[in-house]
Amino acid sequence: MAKKEKYNVAVVGALGIVGREMKSTLERKNFPVNEFRPLGTKRYEGKEVIFNGKPCKAFQADRDTFKGIDIAIFSAGGAASKELAPIAAEEGAVVIDNSSQWRMDPKCPLVVPEVNPQDLDWHNGIIANPNCSTIQMLVALKPLHDYAGIKRIVVSTYQSVSGSGKVAFNGLKNESEEFLSTGKVSNTAAYEQQIAFNCLAHIDVFQEGGYTKEEYKMVNETRKILDKTIKTTATCVRVPVFYGHCESVNIETKNKITREKAIELLEKAPSITVMDDPENNVYPSPIMTNNLDNTLVGRIREDDTIENGLNLWIVSNNIKKGAALNSVEIAETLLQRNLV
Amino acid sequence: MAKKEKYNVAVVGALGIVGREMKSTLERKNFPVNEFRPLGTKRYEGKEVIFNGKPCKAFQADRDTFKGIDIAIFSAGGAASKELAPIAAEEGAVVIDNSSQWRMDPKCPLVVPEVNPQDLDWHNGIIANPNCSTIQMLVALKPLHDYAGIKRIVVSTYQSVSGSGKVAFNGLKNESEEFLSTGKVSNTAAYEQQIAFNCLAHIDVFQEGGYTKEEYKMVNETRKILDKTIKTTATCVRVPVFYGHCESVNIETKNKITREKAIELLEKAPSITVMDDPENNVYPSPIMTNNLDNTLVGRIREDDTIENGLNLWIVSNNIKKGAALNSVEIAETLLQRNLV
Repeated sequence: MAKKEKYNVAVVGALGIVGREMKSTLERKNFPVNEFRPLGTKRYEGKEVIFNGKPCKAFQADRDTFKGIDIAIFSAGGAASKELAPIAAEEGAVVIDNSSQWRMDPKCPLVVPEVNPQDLDWHNGIIANPNCSTIQMLVALKPLHDYAGIKRIVVSTYQSVSGSGKVAFNGLKNESEEFLSTGKVSNTAAYEQQIAFNCLAHIDVFQEGGYTKEEYKMVNETRKILDKTIKTTATCVRVPVFYGHCESVNIETKNKITREKAIELLEKAPSITVMDDPENNVYPSPIMTNNLDNTLVGRIREDDTIENGLNLWIVSNNIKKGAALNSVEIAETLLQRNLV
Repeated sequence: MAKKEKYNVAVVGALGIVGREMKSTLERKNFPVNEFRPLGTKRYEGKEVIFNGKPCKAFQADRDTFKGIDIAIFSAGGAASKELAPIAAEEGAVVIDNSSQWRMDPKCPLVVPEVNPQDLDWHNGIIANPNCSTIQMLVALKPLHDYAGIKRIVVSTYQSVSGSGKVAFNGLKNESEEFLSTGKVSNTAAYEQQIAFNCLAHIDVFQEGGYTKEEYKMVNETRKILDKTIKTTATCVRVPVFYGHCESVNIETKNKITREKAIELLEKAPSITVMDDPENNVYPSPIMTNNLDNTLVGRIREDDTIENGLNLWIVSNNIKKGAALNSVEIAETLLQRNLV
């Protein structure tokens, strides 16, 4: 395709937590935007979003609103993506979809730019953005896999409420305030149990075998993005944190990686900051990711219960690298590879 | 030894979070107490504790205050246990120590009554109560180990602040209140980082290889209590929860255990409640353990990334079964086995 100087970009779900972050990421990265078009549900009609200082009218997303759009970034849930992503693609936009709707579709690339940018080359109009937990794990595991060959992953997550959207975000706030002043929570609207000062081992719906859909996402997306031979078992847990996901990751590799080698590989890898200095109590935590693009890795330890084992603690901003930032980086990579 | 009808019981650290729970556990279990003697630091002098409705004078713990005591339960930290437990034992008390001071001493049994009550038989005056995270994990794993033989454990913990004592408990409360009203935390006295709305992958001091002492406790105590051939690798994490520890546990066994068999074994085992009904979103969480003695087990899933694998989510009250309740159950088992 012929390269343009500037692109018309739509964000579907532009008023949500992730949608707002997408807008500000496009701004701060100076993405070459000609027209910015905020789209969403019926309630978007008549609203305005300021992009690079200029007011942009919002519309209810339908076929007409995708006309003339080059890149459409979706973050409006699976149902909206299912219905509207093919329409946007038919109208000539390249879709970058943040929902789980198209991720395992063999016709749609599933991309973390640091891991598998080459998969963008075979896109058919819809590119899927992986699950937040998968993205940060694979950014950190890619250099280790290239060096030593990962065979098996055992991962337990500590996921913040912002991944569930605004209702959950406000739910944690309101529940916490009530619990601190009265010792109980009367309204647990955000989740089926209280999330304030609690941990919920349940993210997305339960599936066969007792695993959740979130857990299967980590298993299957890892295969599609990094290596189809890797076996992953996951336990995904919601914790009372506003922003930032943590992962306790145990890997078994074909070849030995020492703690020192892992640190060396991770320090050289893109989009990673190693924070691992036990002598000075330095390790990453979710509160550190508030204004951070990079994924933080610490608590790197050789695991001698198997021949070649390693433990890691991987922390990232689920709204940025886990969603909006990765989507915009996909868009940037599309431009670099001349794919829009 | 001749069996008495009632026993003189001292609790060292009786005014702490665990000490208070020890007192109330002795009361509600109708432990046959003749005299209750609250002991602690200098600041205990002159204070009173009500036991079974009667005021009991508190004293600064020293050799004299252990005279006439049959059972001394310690929960006053490692330094106090190191100094005073041998003195209490010399004075004829059987010591049940909640600190980590004596746990790995080959002369001291380390006991979870549901797992290895027989180890009490060789006590020499000091019995160690295991680490809270170890206790709940082994109560749940014991029936599975007996059936299928556990070879390896990969565990990630979600531990509440009450395990760190009153300062941390109040720290979470104060930090949360400040964060909710101002968006930041000015005083992080409880831990080296903010704990409110954050996760800290650091419990107890860092050791060789980047592991913490808490993580080594889980490794070594599991060997001493359950089976010396079991290999454990642990990542221990503090979460912003007041009461109740959670554990994401992946086990590899010699023989296959199906999800159904695991549920059957756990439902028959002592001190366990199985909460595992994904169709109705039923799984345990720490808030459920507030007034609970039993350890809750849910999210039981076969792990097909290895030949014989199983994932479990184990939740328990760290102050009760993780500390005070297990100590009092050790005392009860001592009486049953005529060992006081």
